[in-house]
Amino acid sequence: MSREGFPVVEADLLALSLGAALLGTGGGGNPYIGMLRLRELLRRGATVEVIPLEALDDDAFVGSVGGIGAPVVGVEKIKQGDECLRALRGVEEASGVQCAAIISAEIGGSNSIEPMLTAARAGLPVVDGDGMGRAFPEVQMSTFFIYGLDPSPGAIADDKGNVVVFKHVIDMFWLERFARRTAVEMGAGAGFATTPMPGAYVKKFAVPNTLTQALDVGRVILEARAKHQDVVSRLIDATGATLLFTGKVTGVRRELRGGFAVGEADIAGIDAHAGSNARIAIQNENLVLFVDGQPVAIVPDLIMNLHLETGEPITTETLRYGQKIATIGLPAHELMTTPRALEVVGPKAFGYPDIAFVPLSRQRS
Amino acid sequence: MSREGFPVVEADLLALSLGAALLGTGGGGNPYIGMLRLRELLRRGATVEVIPLEALDDDAFVGSVGGIGAPVVGVEKIKQGDECLRALRGVEEASGVQCAAIISAEIGGSNSIEPMLTAARAGLPVVDGDGMGRAFPEVQMSTFFIYGLDPSPGAIADDKGNVVVFKHVIDMFWLERFARRTAVEMGAGAGFATTPMPGAYVKKFAVPNTLTQALDVGRVILEARAKHQDVVSRLIDATGATLLFTGKVTGVRRELRGGFAVGEADIAGIDAHAGSNARIAIQNENLVLFVDGQPVAIVPDLIMNLHLETGEPITTETLRYGQKIATIGLPAHELMTTPRALEVVGPKAFGYPDIAFVPLSRQRS
Repeated sequence: MSREGFPVVEADLLALSLGAALLGTGGGGNPYIGMLRLRELLRRGATVEVIPLEALDDDAFVGSVGGIGAPVVGVEKIKQGDECLRALRGVEEASGVQCAAIISAEIGGSNSIEPMLTAARAGLPVVDGDGMGRAFPEVQMSTFFIYGLDPSPGAIADDKGNVVVFKHVIDMFWLERFARRTAVEMGAGAGFATTPMPGAYVKKFAVPNTLTQALDVGRVILEARAKHQDVVSRLIDATGATLLFTGKVTGVRRELRGGFAVGEADIAGIDAHAGSNARIAIQNENLVLFVDGQPVAIVPDLIMNLHLETGEPITTETLRYGQKIATIGLPAHELMTTPRALEVVGPKAFGYPDIAFVPLSRQRS
Repeated sequence: MSREGFPVVEADLLALSLGAALLGTGGGGNPYIGMLRLRELLRRGATVEVIPLEALDDDAFVGSVGGIGAPVVGVEKIKQGDECLRALRGVEEASGVQCAAIISAEIGGSNSIEPMLTAARAGLPVVDGDGMGRAFPEVQMSTFFIYGLDPSPGAIADDKGNVVVFKHVIDMFWLERFARRTAVEMGAGAGFATTPMPGAYVKKFAVPNTLTQALDVGRVILEARAKHQDVVSRLIDATGATLLFTGKVTGVRRELRGGFAVGEADIAGIDAHAGSNARIAIQNENLVLFVDGQPVAIVPDLIMNLHLETGEPITTETLRYGQKIATIGLPAHELMTTPRALEVVGPKAFGYPDIAFVPLSRQRS
């Protein structure tokens, strides 16, 4: 094992939730409630050990859990607390294995924390990584499924005691359909577990070190605030992110379409971007940033909005007229930008057939 | 064992499907496609033995299967053929038991035949009985669930290979919600299996001998036609049914409401009922027959429409202006008319809070 693990401590929770909110690229749900729950568990003596991917045994099984809800902003919230654990038990029983560790499907937003709650309750470590390196709205949009994992079985549990097992699903899209539909029937917030994965598979296909990344991002924000530094500049220095735009929100249009929060935000440039106009296309998450009509950052690359002054991450549902914001970008992990991945998480998969994915790093050169 | 079993033979299939269509009380789906499939299986050498309830061992497990679909008329159709068998395997595995026999959840309509297809494929006998003694639109409306069976687990399978297991459901209403929603997602026609039941429970709570009843009813219709007798009179003589009304359909109103085919048919009396007017309230099945404004037959009693001349059962979706019909009634089985049962299948459960259930036999006295 080349790297060390570390325990999650209460002092890190705020940083973790800030970082996860930013990596949610506008979506992913609010990690705040999960953070409070985790804090309670830690105070009562529970421990959560974060282990690096390399620490996984090839033959050990890794469970992936998270909240799933109606695909509208803000409802991926767990109500009762052990929904994810009961869903995990559902897939373990259906597949006849026991999991030795837990991994998040998406580091962005509330699903950075949910796996920790499950891990604390189950007495298992959490893996430092996830299946997206950000947030995405649908189950199949994870490296785990993109790279060929058999999606059977999955399981979903609600706060009332219901557990539904997707025993055989013919592909990851059907898993998404069944799970989403059942979650809606369960009343918006449910715990979801996907099929236990061999450690060897997770080591190969998880986006690595994203819990550490979320923690680091959050710590930079908090430290800059404490030192009255410019948060956005400090973030860019620390993470290698690109400052894509600085401006004032002049309009936000949002509607629910096909279960998604679809919309656009218009931003009038200020400071270095004065005279330019930007537009962000939104589908739960920030998908494409256009500057003066040209796409300059494109899904699956991470497009993140922050309050210009406080560095507070802005989710798509809290974007408002008049806000002064910075839009920064980070390249998606290379596992998310292969031709195979782009079929599932590229601009075409989100309804932009005319936009070719051009990675952020190349844009900058 | 006091009564003998009997094999299903090809010569009985038409009678069986006619009888099942009539006992469907206007709903239950058309048994014709299932009948053709069963004929094929029998011709290829498969056998289906019908056994009486008394033949069940108390400790043996009985599986209940059927088609489930979007709750609109005519879609409870199985597409591929072994959906119910795969659903049965799903509940067997989830509950850790093997079934020794199959029973129909509802004798009315297509679900009289589906369990036979499953039985033929699984090499198991079919029990002479069912959970409704007629057809009803929802899962919980069966004696099996009304009398306290734990509804976990259930399973549903589609024609594509998907199998979803309702591993823990907190009550029969949640089973109906999850199963119906999943069936809709699967594309209308799916195979459904409910939790394996001990033989002792089935012996106590199944509506007995309803396969024999369906066969007998169908045979009477066919024989009367062959002998050019009055089918309706012959049916009444043979079954003890009541002739409730004879008339000409003067109007049919139907709409989809909450997933149900809801409507009314108006009938102007002829022959002995000349001068009277009848109205049938419909929710997939015939629910209440009003004659001159008064309810004279009420769910769960069986209200069945036939073509006056041919004795062909008329489903609610084939009711048309101008048809001359006879409406006959049979009392529901006593298991369906207890206070406990009426909470689930009485007029109030179908949205008629002001109509008290008065059983058909008392009406006649």
